[in-house]
Amino acid sequence: MTEALAPGSTIGILGGGQLGRMLSIAAARLGLKCHIYEPGSAPAADVAHAWTQADWDDRDALKRFADAVDVVTLEFENVPVPVLEVLEPLVPVRPGRRALATAQDRLAEKEFLAGIGLKVAPFAAVDNAGMLLEAIDRIGTPAILKTRRLGYDGKGQARIMQPTDAPEALAAMDGAPAILEGFVDFEREVSVIAARGLDGETVAFDPGENVHRDGILHTTTVPAALPARLKQDAVLAAAQVLGALDYVGVIGVEFFVTREGLVVNEFAPRVHNSGHWTIEACVVDQFQQQIRAVAGWPLGDGSRHSDAVMTNLIGREGDDWRDLAAETGAGLHLYGKAEARPGRKMGHVTRISPKG
Amino acid sequence: MTEALAPGSTIGILGGGQLGRMLSIAAARLGLKCHIYEPGSAPAADVAHAWTQADWDDRDALKRFADAVDVVTLEFENVPVPVLEVLEPLVPVRPGRRALATAQDRLAEKEFLAGIGLKVAPFAAVDNAGMLLEAIDRIGTPAILKTRRLGYDGKGQARIMQPTDAPEALAAMDGAPAILEGFVDFEREVSVIAARGLDGETVAFDPGENVHRDGILHTTTVPAALPARLKQDAVLAAAQVLGALDYVGVIGVEFFVTREGLVVNEFAPRVHNSGHWTIEACVVDQFQQQIRAVAGWPLGDGSRHSDAVMTNLIGREGDDWRDLAAETGAGLHLYGKAEARPGRKMGHVTRISPKG
Repeated sequence: MTEALAPGSTIGILGGGQLGRMLSIAAARLGLKCHIYEPGSAPAADVAHAWTQADWDDRDALKRFADAVDVVTLEFENVPVPVLEVLEPLVPVRPGRRALATAQDRLAEKEFLAGIGLKVAPFAAVDNAGMLLEAIDRIGTPAILKTRRLGYDGKGQARIMQPTDAPEALAAMDGAPAILEGFVDFEREVSVIAARGLDGETVAFDPGENVHRDGILHTTTVPAALPARLKQDAVLAAAQVLGALDYVGVIGVEFFVTREGLVVNEFAPRVHNSGHWTIEACVVDQFQQQIRAVAGWPLGDGSRHSDAVMTNLIGREGDDWRDLAAETGAGLHLYGKAEARPGRKMGHVTRISPKG
Repeated sequence: MTEALAPGSTIGILGGGQLGRMLSIAAARLGLKCHIYEPGSAPAADVAHAWTQADWDDRDALKRFADAVDVVTLEFENVPVPVLEVLEPLVPVRPGRRALATAQDRLAEKEFLAGIGLKVAPFAAVDNAGMLLEAIDRIGTPAILKTRRLGYDGKGQARIMQPTDAPEALAAMDGAPAILEGFVDFEREVSVIAARGLDGETVAFDPGENVHRDGILHTTTVPAALPARLKQDAVLAAAQVLGALDYVGVIGVEFFVTREGLVVNEFAPRVHNSGHWTIEACVVDQFQQQIRAVAGWPLGDGSRHSDAVMTNLIGREGDDWRDLAAETGAGLHLYGKAEARPGRKMGHVTRISPKG
């Protein structure tokens, strides 16, 4: 398929969380329909044309889903790779299996990034106590032990401040294959949201500066306090990742800013929490950019008309909606989730101001 | 009900066209659900939680609809008033019957506007040939004969350039009660989109300047080329209409700009085509403002961060979506309508630029 999908076409989305919800809204603006595939609860379904509620291993449901849509994308990077093996012969899946498989395994991700010449933290595979001791020996402490798969927002991670912390950290992995990552002495964290179209066209939003709290993104500020040269480095690195993966869609690439320049932390093969500010501050936001890319449309103008600070509403912070709704210059977003569990992203607010 | 509806509540919308579609999107951003009531085809249903497809006179369907929602609003001013008579005892309807009844009858509308001291074109009720001759005698020519009810975008209207045009104009009314309106010699047309909350708080977006083509809105430009004093007059007139109707929700008020000041043309008791520019140029757009008002939330910050020109895509103009999608600084909207009939609004595009 090299033609752009005509208005009225249907985009299948794997995953039905808040990212899928915002993708569905973006698709609707362009006259496109969305069909959600989500085994659990699906805030996205309220604004989607259709919802298939079925397990990831339900091959019949996946085939019917493939029949019902014109292209498939995802809002959740832990979609099992076998799902894509069922879908790919039946319908274009963007981004494809390689991007997903790489992003799902921290070791494969680090090897890929280092392999295309980007700077990453020192790392080593850790499958057992012996490999962990060797890895600590080579990388030093402090370091972080992480499961290779799953785990996000600080889950499945253990800090090793000194070699004697090793047994406890390994126990925290619960037998799962892991990766030891050297500590990066960074000044700040930034991220770039970039997109690559079906024709290879690549665009990027301005880098944002991220602050985490308890391992969860707390704020993204744009513009980032970053020299122009490093902004360019970040955008070019994101473009390099997109090109090397022959990627179609939006990617979120996170960087540490160090005295020696940028170190890539990780990438997410999807729209990214640190790109939510684009809804208020750009004519075409990251969600519409993703829809345009996977539908084979020209990418949009992602230039920024305002400065922005995005703040996540975690757990009970969403209860402040009345006060937030009354605030000047604030765009409030609530995700329609019924239960405000601790650590759960319930919404976000983006405060904009004239471009400085 | 004086409490704000909590996130997760459901807003019922009478009508399922593009305005309902954009209202549903706005509600979803705030964690609210929408339930569409629309007898015909419903572009809004693709982004709504539920759709009741039933006739306006289906009392059982209306009662079930009332049971399923927490508040009712409308996107279509020609909802038959008996619909509101069924709904109002069961669920809050905002705006209410009075606003709707007034807006549906051009004679009642003119009498209401004149009654609160606003300047309108000279007008007279015309039920038959004798009344038309008397009206022409009093108002003079040129003048426009319009059906009192229905008719929009230039339909149900006939120009009377000289008294001898009267019989043909009256025949064009097809026996419907009509109103003769004197021609207003205007320099430009502007409109104000304003909102009034449940607590009486009133806010307005910057006035937009409108250009019509073949009786259909072609472009809205913001800022309007209007002296500050007249901008204020327009905003105050809109606020006066809202207050006099004890209105809750968004209203669109159209004005002629004449050498003697503003003349009110008409108002629409709903979000308005000439307010679509607010999506790209304001943090809180007219659709979110309507949702906030009817949900009893505080009204949002409708200040404008950019200049904007909104252009409607009528009929086959929507076919240009590929070129429009590739344009810099342009926000493209397609309404998901299957068939591009002549005169049908298929989408719009808003081009923004830094605030001048």
